[in-house]
Amino acid sequence: MPEYKAPLREIKFVMDEVLDMPGHYASLPAYAEVATPEMIDAIVNEGAKFCENVLAPLNRVGDEEGCTRHEDGSVTTPTGFKEAYAQFVEGGWPTLAHDVEVGGQGLPESLSTVMSEMVGTSNWSWGMYPGLSHGAMNTISTWGTQEQKDTYLTKLVSGEWTGTMCLTEPHCGSDLGILKTKAEPNADGSYSISGTKIFISAGEHDMAENIVHIVLARLPGAPEGTKGISLFIVPKFNANEDGSVGDRNAVVCGSIEHKMGIHGNSTCVMNFDGAKGFLIGPENKGLNCMFTFMNTARIGTALQGVTAAEGSFQGALAYAKDRLAMRSLTGPKAPEKAADPIIVHPDVRKMLLTQKAFAEGGRALVYLAALQNDIVHKGESEEERKAADELLGFLTPIAKAFLTEVGYESTNLGVQVFGGHGFIAEWGMEQLVRDAKISTIYEGTTGIQALDLLGRKVLMTQGQSLKNFTKMVHTFCKENAENEAMAQFVEPLAKLNKEWGDLTMKIGMNAMKNRDEVGSASVDYLMYSGYVTLAYLWARMAKAAQEALAAGTSEEDFYKAKLTTARFYFTRILPRTAGHAATMVAGADTLMDLDAEHFAF
Amino acid sequence: MPEYKAPLREIKFVMDEVLDMPGHYASLPAYAEVATPEMIDAIVNEGAKFCENVLAPLNRVGDEEGCTRHEDGSVTTPTGFKEAYAQFVEGGWPTLAHDVEVGGQGLPESLSTVMSEMVGTSNWSWGMYPGLSHGAMNTISTWGTQEQKDTYLTKLVSGEWTGTMCLTEPHCGSDLGILKTKAEPNADGSYSISGTKIFISAGEHDMAENIVHIVLARLPGAPEGTKGISLFIVPKFNANEDGSVGDRNAVVCGSIEHKMGIHGNSTCVMNFDGAKGFLIGPENKGLNCMFTFMNTARIGTALQGVTAAEGSFQGALAYAKDRLAMRSLTGPKAPEKAADPIIVHPDVRKMLLTQKAFAEGGRALVYLAALQNDIVHKGESEEERKAADELLGFLTPIAKAFLTEVGYESTNLGVQVFGGHGFIAEWGMEQLVRDAKISTIYEGTTGIQALDLLGRKVLMTQGQSLKNFTKMVHTFCKENAENEAMAQFVEPLAKLNKEWGDLTMKIGMNAMKNRDEVGSASVDYLMYSGYVTLAYLWARMAKAAQEALAAGTSEEDFYKAKLTTARFYFTRILPRTAGHAATMVAGADTLMDLDAEHFAF
Repeated sequence: MPEYKAPLREIKFVMDEVLDMPGHYASLPAYAEVATPEMIDAIVNEGAKFCENVLAPLNRVGDEEGCTRHEDGSVTTPTGFKEAYAQFVEGGWPTLAHDVEVGGQGLPESLSTVMSEMVGTSNWSWGMYPGLSHGAMNTISTWGTQEQKDTYLTKLVSGEWTGTMCLTEPHCGSDLGILKTKAEPNADGSYSISGTKIFISAGEHDMAENIVHIVLARLPGAPEGTKGISLFIVPKFNANEDGSVGDRNAVVCGSIEHKMGIHGNSTCVMNFDGAKGFLIGPENKGLNCMFTFMNTARIGTALQGVTAAEGSFQGALAYAKDRLAMRSLTGPKAPEKAADPIIVHPDVRKMLLTQKAFAEGGRALVYLAALQNDIVHKGESEEERKAADELLGFLTPIAKAFLTEVGYESTNLGVQVFGGHGFIAEWGMEQLVRDAKISTIYEGTTGIQALDLLGRKVLMTQGQSLKNFTKMVHTFCKENAENEAMAQFVEPLAKLNKEWGDLTMKIGMNAMKNRDEVGSASVDYLMYSGYVTLAYLWARMAKAAQEALAAGTSEEDFYKAKLTTARFYFTRILPRTAGHAATMVAGADTLMDLDAEHFAF
Repeated sequence: MPEYKAPLREIKFVMDEVLDMPGHYASLPAYAEVATPEMIDAIVNEGAKFCENVLAPLNRVGDEEGCTRHEDGSVTTPTGFKEAYAQFVEGGWPTLAHDVEVGGQGLPESLSTVMSEMVGTSNWSWGMYPGLSHGAMNTISTWGTQEQKDTYLTKLVSGEWTGTMCLTEPHCGSDLGILKTKAEPNADGSYSISGTKIFISAGEHDMAENIVHIVLARLPGAPEGTKGISLFIVPKFNANEDGSVGDRNAVVCGSIEHKMGIHGNSTCVMNFDGAKGFLIGPENKGLNCMFTFMNTARIGTALQGVTAAEGSFQGALAYAKDRLAMRSLTGPKAPEKAADPIIVHPDVRKMLLTQKAFAEGGRALVYLAALQNDIVHKGESEEERKAADELLGFLTPIAKAFLTEVGYESTNLGVQVFGGHGFIAEWGMEQLVRDAKISTIYEGTTGIQALDLLGRKVLMTQGQSLKNFTKMVHTFCKENAENEAMAQFVEPLAKLNKEWGDLTMKIGMNAMKNRDEVGSASVDYLMYSGYVTLAYLWARMAKAAQEALAAGTSEEDFYKAKLTTARFYFTRILPRTAGHAATMVAGADTLMDLDAEHFAF
């Protein structure tokens, strides 16, 4: 099992030296007083300890034991999960980024993202329990009445209760427009919810005294499709007036899924059998309500790509330094041993550097997105909030789909570094593969994200959202045009930044003739966008490293390693854009020509 | 669970129309009489039934139950495995491609490859039990004394006994030079074998009455490294004079591994505690002896890439036609339904076509390699045997590493087509991912294959083996230069075929200055080589389809689908070569510059 060590130096590099998060917090009145550099340091360091010492040791246990459902529908989580959650609540971690009025500490959401990264790398499955509460909290905080906030939100913020999001049904996932769960109005103003929801993470468990389900359902006579869906709060136990837990509601875990990975997460089929629910937000606007914070949830999933790469990198690096096999092609490097440690071999290094480049670049991308989210919520002017929202909307599908795809690739490289041992459960490397696979699927598959990016975000804005971003990249390139040491990064970046616009234009033209050109180009377009976006962040990291080296530093090795990794990314990863560039404009016909009946004979 | 249907039309297309296997058999005196078209058809059709009806239904069972080791070291295989093996033996399948003198049917090894494909797609884990016997049979048939053949080979050929290959030890896999297992000579001419072997597939099980282990070990005073390794036969039960099973030998299964996939395969730690063994082949030449048929074993593993792609494609295709979600971007295609089947969406088609292109192209590549193997063993002239051996040696690392990598990719696409359901065990799609992962590792990892291709096969022959192959491709391109309909395939193929040589030259020059350039380029070089080799086979398949269409056929849809898939491969897959071409010559420095201690801080 790879031992988790929070990459604090890396985290601080991105926070302080690349994105200037202290400056960002100081500029937002809501955070200027609370999110001081000392406070941030204290939280990150405390969080690191909790993740290293409490969560990481439970990661294998969670995979091996999984969750157990009992006959009465109750679910037991893996050994230690419940106790760790109690410690988490005790430590006040769920309250971190919530408003003081509902019992929170009023700290920035982006700080909670940093904590989520460490939680996720040490034990993704465990992290999903508090993680899912986020969705429920966002819903209630944005759309709930004061009474709903008093009843549910405070309990969720404190961590006494947890939440879920009940969207998917057996016959529909990506296409929620065809969902069937019904909400019948009761005389008392509540609703009776009936239907089956599947893939409900943390749907039932033994870690908290109550569970608050946010459920998508249809009112009688609601319009068909996505315009007839409403949102409901359905608690596992009805809440008494005094806030205590009352009688059991008619929502039961019918079974738990046997999955490829994230075994520690209780993934439930939830049966709603006339369960008492409360409308939240306007009738028939449920999907719209959810879209308002979809970005947050998706950035949370993007993080899984980073954690997958980071966790697998840590395991693979330790092994590569330790395991002996063959001699270096340029002569023995450890002549006193039976063979050289495998880190001497170029291809092993290529795998490690690929993981490293994705983990560190991905971290910068997710943190950048998280900063936009802070501004969306706490920015002073309407203008800056809008700009941040647009940037966040543009970055979200890229971060979600690209980082989970390359995070998954990274976990597979981790197995490969271990060779045969990587395939054996006890080393923990194959678990990372199994856990990471879901990240390219849930919260919108890579295909769905790609349509969101190319269709909704880029083409529907006539390319404006792309232009806003490429302008940012362009400005960076221009600022560094005279910096000779940066030429190796700035020149290819500027070239790709321009090509990105040209390709977009070309696809846009193709799409005017045939709408299928969008779907045909979309995933290649998304991956291309991801590689270029990460190149921009790697160039910024290189810049920060060069500045530190120029200023003189006692950490020369750290900054030089940053530059080497940046060079690796530009010369060994970025050329992948060429293939995507060629295929995205190759035309829809080779995809669409074949009759569905002629795929096999 | 995806239902397996043997792709007989596809198999026959490659056998009869692309590679002219009937003509090939007719040209080899050893097979001309026995491998008649009628015989081939009968065998393939019978084999298909066995795989569809007996093996495929056991595939999920194998994954769910796995193998159980008991306290006495015995192992129980999953329900039904033993009975299926009995049927397999009863049907004479193990005897198929073995010489008549040892009880075989004297049919070609390449025909057995076709059967292995069907066995592997329907149930890879099960197929490993008879599969591993192959290695043992090859060893004994090539290096065994007449007595050893009489005692062991006939029992292995009949299938009454099974075999294993015991190479890996806890501290060494790729680097067998450092293995420690000892062989001490006994007074009676036998040896006492002591040591621990790991990852021994089919090392212990309940399917056959005896197991014949082929073990790598060191004689006393043997030279260090790979030049001091000898081969030994170590039976589980010593054989009596009359061929019956005698007393138990001191080789015991110490534990079975808990693995990511291939749960149905019994993967054992084998403890040799002074077990009685018999030298086979010359002293200290064990590794060389094994290399003589390494190609066969690796081609067998290459097949796993094809079976992974084929199996996942079959599952994903059925689901994509059935599952409803969203409307086509160009308007409803199934207006009578709540949504369109997802096969209308371009990106879903892209995933399906990728699987299809790899399965069908990979099949052609593996069968082409298998034909060379026939010639190596039964070719009439020394010259043709040598040419076939060289071609086989060149194709082997490409087929093994490239096909398993893209086969693995295909299984992941299969999960993605299913969305959330792909992650759930009961659908069987995630099992294919878990089963396929090992294929990029065992029988030499992708990294090892890449060094074999670029280092041993290409650079050590001064590029001769590459030239022999590119000449074949060049000849094909020239022959079709005037064929207008083939231009879309021939032109890009000819271009890449030339670039392949240029890149090789460049790497060769770089390597003269720095040996690490070989390892730095090798995996990109291998993947590039794979894409180009598959392009050649897709061009040949396109040619065969065009000829059939020109000649007039009742199967127009089949041949047109073949052309569409070829076009898909050339426009949507082949451009990946661009990224690999750029990175393989990007220089070793970005990989080698970083000190091992500076990968993390």
